[in-house]
Amino acid sequence: MRAPDLAPFHDLPDIAVDVLTRLRRQRPRVHCLTNAVAQTFTANILLALGATPSMTIAPGEVGLFVRSAGALLINLGTLDGERRTAMDLAAEAALAAEIPWVLDPVKIERSDIRAVYARALLGKAPAAIRLNADEFAALSGGAADRAAIATFAQRQSLAVAMTGETDIVSDGARTAEIRNGHPLMTQVTAIGCAESAVVASCLAVEKNGFRAVAAALLIFNIAGEIAAGRARGPGSFAVEILDALHNLNEAALRERARMS
Amino acid sequence: MRAPDLAPFHDLPDIAVDVLTRLRRQRPRVHCLTNAVAQTFTANILLALGATPSMTIAPGEVGLFVRSAGALLINLGTLDGERRTAMDLAAEAALAAEIPWVLDPVKIERSDIRAVYARALLGKAPAAIRLNADEFAALSGGAADRAAIATFAQRQSLAVAMTGETDIVSDGARTAEIRNGHPLMTQVTAIGCAESAVVASCLAVEKNGFRAVAAALLIFNIAGEIAAGRARGPGSFAVEILDALHNLNEAALRERARMS
Amino acid sequence: MRAPDLAPFHDLPDIAVDVLTRLRRQRPRVHCLTNAVAQTFTANILLALGATPSMTIAPGEVGLFVRSAGALLINLGTLDGERRTAMDLAAEAALAAEIPWVLDPVKIERSDIRAVYARALLGKAPAAIRLNADEFAALSGGAADRAAIATFAQRQSLAVAMTGETDIVSDGARTAEIRNGHPLMTQVTAIGCAESAVVASCLAVEKNGFRAVAAALLIFNIAGEIAAGRARGPGSFAVEILDALHNLNEAALRERARMS
Repeated sequence: MRAPDLAPFHDLPDIAVDVLTRLRRQRPRVHCLTNAVAQTFTANILLALGATPSMTIAPGEVGLFVRSAGALLINLGTLDGERRTAMDLAAEAALAAEIPWVLDPVKIERSDIRAVYARALLGKAPAAIRLNADEFAALSGGAADRAAIATFAQRQSLAVAMTGETDIVSDGARTAEIRNGHPLMTQVTAIGCAESAVVASCLAVEKNGFRAVAAALLIFNIAGEIAAGRARGPGSFAVEILDALHNLNEAALRERARMS
Repeated sequence: MRAPDLAPFHDLPDIAVDVLTRLRRQRPRVHCLTNAVAQTFTANILLALGATPSMTIAPGEVGLFVRSAGALLINLGTLDGERRTAMDLAAEAALAAEIPWVLDPVKIERSDIRAVYARALLGKAPAAIRLNADEFAALSGGAADRAAIATFAQRQSLAVAMTGETDIVSDGARTAEIRNGHPLMTQVTAIGCAESAVVASCLAVEKNGFRAVAAALLIFNIAGEIAAGRARGPGSFAVEILDALHNLNEAALRERARMS
Repeated sequence: MRAPDLAPFHDLPDIAVDVLTRLRRQRPRVHCLTNAVAQTFTANILLALGATPSMTIAPGEVGLFVRSAGALLINLGTLDGERRTAMDLAAEAALAAEIPWVLDPVKIERSDIRAVYARALLGKAPAAIRLNADEFAALSGGAADRAAIATFAQRQSLAVAMTGETDIVSDGARTAEIRNGHPLMTQVTAIGCAESAVVASCLAVEKNGFRAVAAALLIFNIAGEIAAGRARGPGSFAVEILDALHNLNEAALRERARMS
């Protein structure tokens, strides 16, 4: 394992601007197998970002939708039988067709069924994983610090987005911390799930996992900061983040990015 | 087939005012079998309009809910096994009890399973169909122009609402173009699905398919224009269209209607 | 049966303030088995209130999530097969682990399947039930007046929250009427479902059923009044009630409470 790169990350805003520009031009379709609570908000986040959501979990259709998508998200929330069947088919289809995909192992620290399944899905070559510190600990067996995240990314050959008060992004070779975002983001359901869909959207236009993940976190969390500045509580925040994503521009990305 | 009627449509605003007035007075219950992403927004659109939504897909209940409803919507999005069973039961119940129903053949151009099923459902005598140009082409095998839509409506004995930048409404005998709406309507998930539920609501109080469909499109798209005038992006737009539908009045319908 | 207590209820605002304070400090997790239309809004209401939602209906997980929760909600809307299996498992788990739980028998007046099931669930010792007058009549066989509600609460050993223009709260020993709320609360889907989840949240921190139910109704309906004062229709109302719950303070609870 290479030591985490501690150099400044002056290029991250450039990357975020570049990825967002390509996203809005290409409008990739992103297939999202996500939990029942997150579906509508996730679809609206993708539309506000410039991507095109599709969401079917029907076994007869899901392979078809994945093979023609720009990227795939598999989110383990509300993991019922039909969703699980769809996820198996989707991960296989993505692997076979080389569609980049993102794993969001929701609450695996609370459910052994999900933890076992998440580990099995790591065998299907996800390009990235987005999770919080508890989920990282449950998946890797260790603390969610910078070195452990870099090691995990290296070993699994994927990009990690570990989100929390400070986000840690790593592909093993390069590790960055991003400090954007706002506490209201923890007061709206499915914000993390939607963030994972933003990661998938960025992967649809940027194959380098580190760049895609870093761009996604900057874009989403800076939109969150702008939204928090206009919100009076979590209800208006959920509305404002959609408007902020839709209207996000290069200046805001460059001025607000905070990373190390 | 009669030639499409190219005369002006001065009576459409009158029809929309009349249908909306009856809707708000009668508050019909409209049973919606719609996709998982659209359920909540569709229910809120119906409430804002003056209708009463019901949404169960449980096989043991769906026939009961349909037989006592004023109208039914069948939307083919997220077409999983339980939804499909519910749709079969619901279409049969609607046919037997003469409940008017609307088909929304979501993304049939992308899924053969849905296309085959949509064609089968046409045999259950829907009163109306709402779709976009790609879906019309997949269903009819031809281009989505005015003449082809009128022919299709005539042959299938239903009213067509083909929506897009310009909407085309036809029952075969009469064909109109409606030019209301706003681009933000494409940036919110389930807007088209909700529009289909508005068509079903109008059919619950107006048995003439052409009148019901034309009223629905004017009502929904004029509410969308008013909402767009107040919105700063897709998040606030989705809020504002509910308020605009709730507050929509005769003057706005008459002043804003644009058709030919 | 004791006669309903007709004395004034000067202590209810104190109770509401106390329960809300504990809720925000303890942030209990509340597992919600609720209908597909209500899931997202319910989760956001709980977060705005200070509770933590979980929502899985997967049979392999639901017992685990219930046993470690502070309270459980079972809402009978969209009662499909998988939800019903989850409810059986959840009610058993709650009974065995002594987790307080709330029954919301949605639309049982319209579906015999639901009515029969609701009666069976009463045997699993719910701590509270929230319903409207039609649902109460279908469940108890009688009119939804103050005396009948007190009798039902006494006989079933639970707290009843019968909501409508005036809410009636009773545990058999004590019966109160609460007159807060606003007509816009009937124009947003899943408001009643979310209110039941608020009842469950209050039960997670207050074991006395009467106190928990009365607090929940005051908190939710006063937030609704504040939201209505800021809303222009049902779309903005649904946003404002989340902000109002998040920002609700002791002064508003004391000034606005109207009960007898």
